[in-house]
Amino acid sequence: MDRTTMDPSLEARLRGIQLLLCDVDGILTDAAVFVGAAGEFKRFNILDGLGLALLRREGVKVGWISNRPSEATRLRAEELKVDFLHQQPGDKTEAARQMLAQTGLTPGQTCYMGDDIVDVGLLRMVGLAVSVPNGRPEAKAAAHYVTDAAGGDGAVREIVELILKAKNRWIPLMDDYARHGSR
Amino acid sequence: MDRTTMDPSLEARLRGIQLLLCDVDGILTDAAVFVGAAGEFKRFNILDGLGLALLRREGVKVGWISNRPSEATRLRAEELKVDFLHQQPGDKTEAARQMLAQTGLTPGQTCYMGDDIVDVGLLRMVGLAVSVPNGRPEAKAAAHYVTDAAGGDGAVREIVELILKAKNRWIPLMDDYARHGSR
Amino acid sequence: MDRTTMDPSLEARLRGIQLLLCDVDGILTDAAVFVGAAGEFKRFNILDGLGLALLRREGVKVGWISNRPSEATRLRAEELKVDFLHQQPGDKTEAARQMLAQTGLTPGQTCYMGDDIVDVGLLRMVGLAVSVPNGRPEAKAAAHYVTDAAGGDGAVREIVELILKAKNRWIPLMDDYARHGSR
Amino acid sequence: MDRTTMDPSLEARLRGIQLLLCDVDGILTDAAVFVGAAGEFKRFNILDGLGLALLRREGVKVGWISNRPSEATRLRAEELKVDFLHQQPGDKTEAARQMLAQTGLTPGQTCYMGDDIVDVGLLRMVGLAVSVPNGRPEAKAAAHYVTDAAGGDGAVREIVELILKAKNRWIPLMDDYARHGSR
Repeated sequence: MDRTTMDPSLEARLRGIQLLLCDVDGILTDAAVFVGAAGEFKRFNILDGLGLALLRREGVKVGWISNRPSEATRLRAEELKVDFLHQQPGDKTEAARQMLAQTGLTPGQTCYMGDDIVDVGLLRMVGLAVSVPNGRPEAKAAAHYVTDAAGGDGAVREIVELILKAKNRWIPLMDDYARHGSR
Repeated sequence: MDRTTMDPSLEARLRGIQLLLCDVDGILTDAAVFVGAAGEFKRFNILDGLGLALLRREGVKVGWISNRPSEATRLRAEELKVDFLHQQPGDKTEAARQMLAQTGLTPGQTCYMGDDIVDVGLLRMVGLAVSVPNGRPEAKAAAHYVTDAAGGDGAVREIVELILKAKNRWIPLMDDYARHGSR
Repeated sequence: MDRTTMDPSLEARLRGIQLLLCDVDGILTDAAVFVGAAGEFKRFNILDGLGLALLRREGVKVGWISNRPSEATRLRAEELKVDFLHQQPGDKTEAARQMLAQTGLTPGQTCYMGDDIVDVGLLRMVGLAVSVPNGRPEAKAAAHYVTDAAGGDGAVREIVELILKAKNRWIPLMDDYARHGSR
Repeated sequence: MDRTTMDPSLEARLRGIQLLLCDVDGILTDAAVFVGAAGEFKRFNILDGLGLALLRREGVKVGWISNRPSEATRLRAEELKVDFLHQQPGDKTEAARQMLAQTGLTPGQTCYMGDDIVDVGLLRMVGLAVSVPNGRPEAKAAAHYVTDAAGGDGAVREIVELILKAKNRWIPLMDDYARHGSR
């Protein structure tokens, strides 16, 4: 989305985000799970990983909320030093409320990205609800914004950049990279 | 498919389904098998998994019928608590008849999803025969309905939702999710 | 390809095939190799596997010729009971000549499927040279026929069906399946 | 790109290349990482592998520069006998300068392929900067050339062929293959 044409209310929502919560399957992956005798694999995306690192560096907290426990997810969350990881069946809004209680943040300061019917309740609770092109119609209908990139192909990176741009932090970050390669 | 434009005979077929049988490769996956020294992997879809869980919760039985034994398939079937799993070479209609005998259901109450020439016999036997866009022409020709979603990318979820909608069970399920996040 | 519009010389070439030779990477796969500490994986296709089984059942021999040794390839070849497997660097035409010597067949009775520059010599040697949409221009230029399906997504199955149809063996096979589910 | 219509300045840049440096994730892969308890996998491409072998045979050095250490990358680099492998966080231009010092080559003789913001500094430093269709806008803006093929689907092979063609080495190589199958 071209920021010059961005809905002003979307930009206001993005600017206030202090916590990014993501569903895992279908958001951080393409909803595929690779099953075999040697355990299960999930296909995560390096672009999303760098995006989440940039976001945390700017002080925005990150949490992942899934109803399906998976060692693959735990390993990737650990590598990315995600602030919160919840992997259990049950109401996702409860898991989110616990994370909010620990951070002292409000639902209005929270963005949630979800793709399926189990995500609708939490999508309705947060200040910025995001879904993906590959999401189910119910999740898309509950979203303020649907990403251009599909889940697992940079949807999370897209939101990270929109948040950092709305906070006027993207250009300084790029200047930093141009000067030092990385920080 | 927009339900308001759905063929009335298709809706009648969907409404009567009490048993959903699926081929595995090409239906629950994209027909790929990942082969290596550490065993074999298959790419299943989380959307299909939730769909099958919803269907079983509503009392519809689920069976998978493949001609190729695979530990990857067994593991995924076990996770999803599929009612029947048949993985052997041979006539698939025989396997289906055994499942029908155990449940007391009829072929007319059965939906079968298949993509290849080995599926044609069973597709012709059941009340609702379904194939996928990536299916072989012989399987598609024997089908009452070809899904929009490809095998491994939500074809099974699509059929599950059509069945639950035809039974007028989808809206109550969604209301439940909206209230409780999950059941 | 619609057989009613098929080039008559292509049909003559197909009819005479008694040996199907395939490159592995890019033909039986999409040219991807999944590398990790637990070994390497390749993404084979179940549709191709059934096609090769049908072909061997009709008396056509099958050989795979690759310049890169891979345990993943060996395991898949073993499962499919491929008649010949050659996995070594070097001239592929030599490997093919050894297979021809063992079978008493001629280059004119041989189909070879290849996608890269190392395949051009062998493509030029055989009676029916086939490449894939994802093939390099040099391989496609040396081919009598380029499949509709990409490597790893059914290209081999497509050729198998064309061969069996040209031999008037496809309809009897389908009748058999319709009656018995499988043989 | 059709060489007859190639920008003459691009052809001059290609002709002078003596060192090809590549980012890994997003360039040699599609930016996906497959995570599981049995370690991590990356999806490399056999076409790229043969391309890099051809390039090294013609005396052009090859180096990979990533900010994320990965055993999968190390294994693939080892198989392809890549001249330099750098896998550490930090400024990529420093890593490149060390490789240049060891070879006695200049930035002008260097091609770098990168897809993300961490690549911009090095893209600006080299004589030929290349990005991919799936690259981030910042990387593409810093590139002299954006490949037709996506990362992991032959982007590196595309550049290798352009370099060898600009050096008038492609036709001799093809003649060699046509005569001997391989060298």
